[in-house]
Amino acid sequence: MGNEWDRVKDCLDSTFVSSVGKYVDRFEVMLAEYTGAKYAVAVVNGTAALHIALFLAGVRPGDEVLIPALSFVATANAVSHCEAIPHFIESQFETLGIDPHALNDYLKHCSLSSSEGLTNRLTGRRIAAVVPMHTYGHPVEMGSLLDVADRYHLPVVEDAAESLGSCYRGQHTGTFGQLGTLSFNGNKVITTGGGGAILTNDAKLAQQAKHLTTTAKQPHRWGFFHDAVAWNYRLPNLNAALGCAQMEQLSSLLNRKRLLAQKYQEVLQDVEGIGFVVEPANSQSNYWLNTLRLEQPSLSIRDRLLTAANDGGYQCRPTWTLLHKLPMYADCPRAPLPVAERLEASLINVPSSAKLAGNMK
Amino acid sequence: MGNEWDRVKDCLDSTFVSSVGKYVDRFEVMLAEYTGAKYAVAVVNGTAALHIALFLAGVRPGDEVLIPALSFVATANAVSHCEAIPHFIESQFETLGIDPHALNDYLKHCSLSSSEGLTNRLTGRRIAAVVPMHTYGHPVEMGSLLDVADRYHLPVVEDAAESLGSCYRGQHTGTFGQLGTLSFNGNKVITTGGGGAILTNDAKLAQQAKHLTTTAKQPHRWGFFHDAVAWNYRLPNLNAALGCAQMEQLSSLLNRKRLLAQKYQEVLQDVEGIGFVVEPANSQSNYWLNTLRLEQPSLSIRDRLLTAANDGGYQCRPTWTLLHKLPMYADCPRAPLPVAERLEASLINVPSSAKLAGNMK
Repeated sequence: MGNEWDRVKDCLDSTFVSSVGKYVDRFEVMLAEYTGAKYAVAVVNGTAALHIALFLAGVRPGDEVLIPALSFVATANAVSHCEAIPHFIESQFETLGIDPHALNDYLKHCSLSSSEGLTNRLTGRRIAAVVPMHTYGHPVEMGSLLDVADRYHLPVVEDAAESLGSCYRGQHTGTFGQLGTLSFNGNKVITTGGGGAILTNDAKLAQQAKHLTTTAKQPHRWGFFHDAVAWNYRLPNLNAALGCAQMEQLSSLLNRKRLLAQKYQEVLQDVEGIGFVVEPANSQSNYWLNTLRLEQPSLSIRDRLLTAANDGGYQCRPTWTLLHKLPMYADCPRAPLPVAERLEASLINVPSSAKLAGNMK
Repeated sequence: MGNEWDRVKDCLDSTFVSSVGKYVDRFEVMLAEYTGAKYAVAVVNGTAALHIALFLAGVRPGDEVLIPALSFVATANAVSHCEAIPHFIESQFETLGIDPHALNDYLKHCSLSSSEGLTNRLTGRRIAAVVPMHTYGHPVEMGSLLDVADRYHLPVVEDAAESLGSCYRGQHTGTFGQLGTLSFNGNKVITTGGGGAILTNDAKLAQQAKHLTTTAKQPHRWGFFHDAVAWNYRLPNLNAALGCAQMEQLSSLLNRKRLLAQKYQEVLQDVEGIGFVVEPANSQSNYWLNTLRLEQPSLSIRDRLLTAANDGGYQCRPTWTLLHKLPMYADCPRAPLPVAERLEASLINVPSSAKLAGNMK
């Protein structure tokens, strides 16, 4: 706990807890400075951030958007909120994120490039964007991913909801694509209660992101004129005040999370049959969640372990149910997913709060 | 200022500022008790509340939804977020809300009833719901409105964003329709920074509202299984903590607002050419905003007055630009709107904060 009380109390005392007030601006500046993005636009949560980022990247009703089958459901929901269709792609064993090499091979035979853009040969629908998601804070192999996106003229929108503090080749995640998004939900590295942000280096996209997330109201001394169908996705000033205090603590939180991950790694190195997910090559992970791997993937063994751990009071969790196994996304197009299936049957998240590193050396 | 800081500090100290914690439950109970609705589901803002309420009332892509042309843009945006089309209807001079009598006459010639429901004769689209909005806190003539809705088998979703504390025939606004919605944006009677709620007396709709606004995750000790395309519209616990403290003050805030309205009425009664909007018959208004009427409607005189007032440091505002005059809603179907046009050219909102009644007797 740092300056959370002071910042939030100052915000309450100012009585500007809502859509007007200094903390939203300050929080956006802090996020831009920290990530190295030119612009950060604070919004109400990570799902809202991804929804608007996809819209600004040109995703339109009936389009397909390439997203990993292994992700939190919000990644797919944000695509649905654009009235578009998720198209599930394969994961990489080391990074837990999109496998750019598998993606390249897959697009070679499943897609068609034309002046209209990229089309899915099977469905005839336009493929409008690709969304690398940095799973549990571990960066996707962005170098190769950007090459593939370039080759197929695909806009990249990074879902960096889990990776504040994670870098690939020294560059912060969420700043490689045309747009990137962050989340500050309660379970994230830092929290604003609920909140998110859109990152971009493009001044026009940043201006549009702000406009569309604040009811598209044209500036006027008194008039109410709105020029587009838009959203009320503004982050309240109260939540931004908490975010500012949390940002002040980010590097200390990240240090403690890294220490905890090192401890897990040490403790687990001699345990037979169980591995530990470490940050990928060329990357620095925030180790948002610490993750074990069963060396022999098995959903039934995984579930027995989860039962035992939770019975014993240890909050262990599986990874997400693969998105194409959820009823509302069962009929969406998908690539072959052998690695994603293997990851689903082998990953177990273990308690990861920075507080657990309290007394560690 | 009452217990705002105590509640928010308690929430920060608990570290449960986000999606888990006691304040969301407590705030929902307080809202249900106060309004007399059986259930209240807290969400991230009023637009989100209306979006989900419309969805739960059965509004589907391509449907039309009857809403007043005189409303904040969020009413129309929530319809758009359901991929439905706003259909603008006429206002009543006294209430500033939907005119049920004009609506009845309009539906007689513009709609067709069949076993499929109500259809717009001109567009062939289904008319899926009607949304009375209680303008500036003044209740719509709900008795007649419910009669019309009954006659045409139209679900009623009340937009009570502005009318917390307002009653019609002793019953709280937002509790007459199948569903109703509230807003706690910074400019409202009470605020949570940003927030809203869905009201209903139907247990199943309440359960669905909670489910769909919290990613449709099925309860499970550890599993991640979601059973519908859904939204992240949950109100953070931090904002609910502020809401609880604000609810404790609601009756005092309403008293002060009523006092301020009485003063405006007294002062204005002898001013020639200018009237004051008073609560409609059979209603108690929260007087969220105090509103003057030019007796001779004129956009140009209105704007001259607004310029002068704002130049002098008085934050006076016009009513909203009628929704069909906004570019994105210009092509939507609409009834004849002579009264709405007249209201647009004659209403001026004057400073209305409860604080202004501080020293009044």
